[in-house]
Amino acid sequence: MAAAPVWSVDPRTGKQREQVAVEATAQEVDEAVRAAHEARPSLADRTVRAAFLRTAADRLQGAKDHLVEAADAETALGPVRLTGELARTCYQLRAFADIVDEGAFLDVVINHPDDTATPPIPDLRRYKVPLGVVAVYSASNFPFAFSVAGGDTASALAAGCPVVVKAHPDHPALSELVAKVLRTAAAEHGIPAGVVGLVHGFEAGIELIKHPLVTAAGFTGSVRGGRALFDAAAARPVPIPFHGELGSLNPVVITEAAAAERAEAIGTGLAGSMTLGVGQFCVKPGLVLVPSGAAGDGLVKSLTDAVSDTDSGVLLDHRMRDNFIAGVAERGELADVESPVTPGAGGEHTVSAGFLTVGAEKLASEGAYDLLLEECFGPVTVVVRYDDDDQARAVLSRLPGNLTATVHLSASEAAGEGRGAEILAELTPLAGRVLVNGWPTGVAVAPAQHHGGPYPATTSTSTSVGGTAIERWMRPVAYQGAPEALLPVELRDENVLGLPRRFNGRLER
Amino acid sequence: MAAAPVWSVDPRTGKQREQVAVEATAQEVDEAVRAAHEARPSLADRTVRAAFLRTAADRLQGAKDHLVEAADAETALGPVRLTGELARTCYQLRAFADIVDEGAFLDVVINHPDDTATPPIPDLRRYKVPLGVVAVYSASNFPFAFSVAGGDTASALAAGCPVVVKAHPDHPALSELVAKVLRTAAAEHGIPAGVVGLVHGFEAGIELIKHPLVTAAGFTGSVRGGRALFDAAAARPVPIPFHGELGSLNPVVITEAAAAERAEAIGTGLAGSMTLGVGQFCVKPGLVLVPSGAAGDGLVKSLTDAVSDTDSGVLLDHRMRDNFIAGVAERGELADVESPVTPGAGGEHTVSAGFLTVGAEKLASEGAYDLLLEECFGPVTVVVRYDDDDQARAVLSRLPGNLTATVHLSASEAAGEGRGAEILAELTPLAGRVLVNGWPTGVAVAPAQHHGGPYPATTSTSTSVGGTAIERWMRPVAYQGAPEALLPVELRDENVLGLPRRFNGRLER
Repeated sequence: MAAAPVWSVDPRTGKQREQVAVEATAQEVDEAVRAAHEARPSLADRTVRAAFLRTAADRLQGAKDHLVEAADAETALGPVRLTGELARTCYQLRAFADIVDEGAFLDVVINHPDDTATPPIPDLRRYKVPLGVVAVYSASNFPFAFSVAGGDTASALAAGCPVVVKAHPDHPALSELVAKVLRTAAAEHGIPAGVVGLVHGFEAGIELIKHPLVTAAGFTGSVRGGRALFDAAAARPVPIPFHGELGSLNPVVITEAAAAERAEAIGTGLAGSMTLGVGQFCVKPGLVLVPSGAAGDGLVKSLTDAVSDTDSGVLLDHRMRDNFIAGVAERGELADVESPVTPGAGGEHTVSAGFLTVGAEKLASEGAYDLLLEECFGPVTVVVRYDDDDQARAVLSRLPGNLTATVHLSASEAAGEGRGAEILAELTPLAGRVLVNGWPTGVAVAPAQHHGGPYPATTSTSTSVGGTAIERWMRPVAYQGAPEALLPVELRDENVLGLPRRFNGRLER
Repeated sequence: MAAAPVWSVDPRTGKQREQVAVEATAQEVDEAVRAAHEARPSLADRTVRAAFLRTAADRLQGAKDHLVEAADAETALGPVRLTGELARTCYQLRAFADIVDEGAFLDVVINHPDDTATPPIPDLRRYKVPLGVVAVYSASNFPFAFSVAGGDTASALAAGCPVVVKAHPDHPALSELVAKVLRTAAAEHGIPAGVVGLVHGFEAGIELIKHPLVTAAGFTGSVRGGRALFDAAAARPVPIPFHGELGSLNPVVITEAAAAERAEAIGTGLAGSMTLGVGQFCVKPGLVLVPSGAAGDGLVKSLTDAVSDTDSGVLLDHRMRDNFIAGVAERGELADVESPVTPGAGGEHTVSAGFLTVGAEKLASEGAYDLLLEECFGPVTVVVRYDDDDQARAVLSRLPGNLTATVHLSASEAAGEGRGAEILAELTPLAGRVLVNGWPTGVAVAPAQHHGGPYPATTSTSTSVGGTAIERWMRPVAYQGAPEALLPVELRDENVLGLPRRFNGRLER
């Protein structure tokens, strides 16, 4: 049987652009994983690793024009967005280099012997070591930031873990280009090319998660695909951590007072957020609780105007377009669901944005309307009209886990009057990021970021964005009674590297 | 069908002592979980939680005589060991109270807005919140320290998570007593009794892991039982973290120089460690690499003398005794496996300690001798005689993951001459704790401790002993753009609680 070809496809026309590669066989996956495994020692030196990450950022930035053009041809996301996304990706690589340099992520804890403890404490010194080869499953919707050189790759390399990336079929040509840039950067630091493996093909992705030398995986994609891989990771003879970001509805609550205060601004802001990137963000607001009555009506009117004015757009591939058209049609057919602006097919290759409205009472208990509680990828949102706080709470209580939850408050509520703090506390169990008077689209790369949330938002409690993402790829090890001469330098009393650490109970920074 | 009775059994006689309870039905498990879920708000205040943990320690210590007597009647571990274990358990509860007070475990990270970042950083403030109800599966071999008031319970309560404990059938009466003490302590702080649930029965354990309101689980026990529960946790509609400690061989390497220097001391030390607590420790050294030749022979001679002098002992239950007798017999029947001291049945209710020897070449590749690479619970170890470093390494490369790995070095090797540091680096991938010139039995409760290791030692990268165990039961959440007035006090600029935190990139302690 001939190997299946991997085509680069233009989503603006649905036409094949070029054959990029062939799908990887089990043997090729094995070779990639072994090459990555062999590359581990080359990442052992943190100085080298930080330098590699910075060089990678420089080389990607240097190839900007070429990369953005290649990305746009395969994703139709447009040069402005893609240029920004590439800059973000480079920023992220450099941010992880800084984290590697600082060394706090090693979590060094040193205990000298203490005979007064029960039982007595011997000399114990703990820090974190890299897990080994990490499998990275790229997302379709961020061809730079959640793909070959994206967050999982950056954090894994920062942790000292080589990666094998399963390329997303929506941008295989770009994936090859980016992998090449990363390998060029690696070579400048004497790191073998195997440090960043790349494989194409659905079956290759399954082989990858099952490979005995793969020690952990990161995934961004659908609930269905992510859950299948999560299950495979858990079913291995030696199970491995699977950090998957699967799906999220990203609820938004508009209080009565907020709607009364600035219906138009909120409606316009919502339209911008839900249609940004043609609605292809995992943090797109997909369910918005809007009060019944005149203020809420005004908000819906403003949303209607703004969404009506939105140009139709090209989705990442034609399967997504088909799913979007079918998904919004199915939702729109539910009794008493209205479509002030009907989402659906735009031109032959595009889709047009829209939104649906429904009364909160329909969502109070299990039934056909539960379809509205499922994520629908693309430029659509569901506006749920509620009569009072209890009704809003009833809807929120029925939501699966989310990446984000948002509330829009009035100025006085934001200042502490009324239920603001209470609502914040109510939203906290629902999501990994809780926003006030903002929109969830736009995920900053920052130490305080958390991009994750209760299942199915993510399959673990960790984050895929922000400094703490590095924790995914490490495990602690403690040394007991080891003479200083034999210990890694990070664990010796004399802190020559100036690492932040906990030394005999005291935090040293 | 009548509910199955739960009996307390005396392992010294095999006779039933009293009926303690009946096995919990699915409905009773549901009630326990719901009661725990309802108790969550009572743990929200960290001051209350710390006080509760300290009161629990005080009350357990206060009931010492009664508890130790009850524990001994069901476990035959003896009052000296049990008194020590209870003290350790109380120390652990207090240590977690200190951790709660300090607040570093909240991992507070604050970022003020930064428009120079790519993309710009909004106001972001992250800390960790408790997951919710935790299921705790008790171990047989630590009726205090890894049971109802043990590490998982202490760390979960410290994190703010109520627990439902699945009692171990080897000490059901003690489990009830300890739960009662914990609930009395809870009541002193206005915390409802449901904060510590207790259920008996195998089926109840399965119901518990599947319950929708259970958010995470801790387990200490066998590979078979632990894997079944791990699989059930992963197969849930909403999978949950399962922190299981399953099994470990705990390899020990004796270098040629160490054997030459102090064969007798090492042989005696090994005998003490492998027979401690009748060999019923998860960190019992189960495989010891001893050099061929005269020095190694001397070590084996010393081990022979010391093990021969060991009294026979009572295992925790008769099923364990049967398994031990069958397990050592099966191992001893392998060709060329010798038994300088034959382990097996002692008296009618006891077992006698022993050890086996085998040549390293037998373990170099897959085959019947792999049985020797499986943990055998009880007072037995396998001494593997090796000719050179390559042969020792070949055996180590075949081991599954371990809680501990140990090396005994000569004085000059420990001082930095020879292969000491290299061996430490070689042992690091094998285990979560690496010891030099010590024995793995005895797991100190300390911030730098790590009790966990590659699968099957544990099913996650976290620890069940030591301060960082609290991380198991928490997840991060980030607040974006939230006004100070609405934020939890932990996340406000003015650090009134004096929490260690990362503030605009800088570590504050």
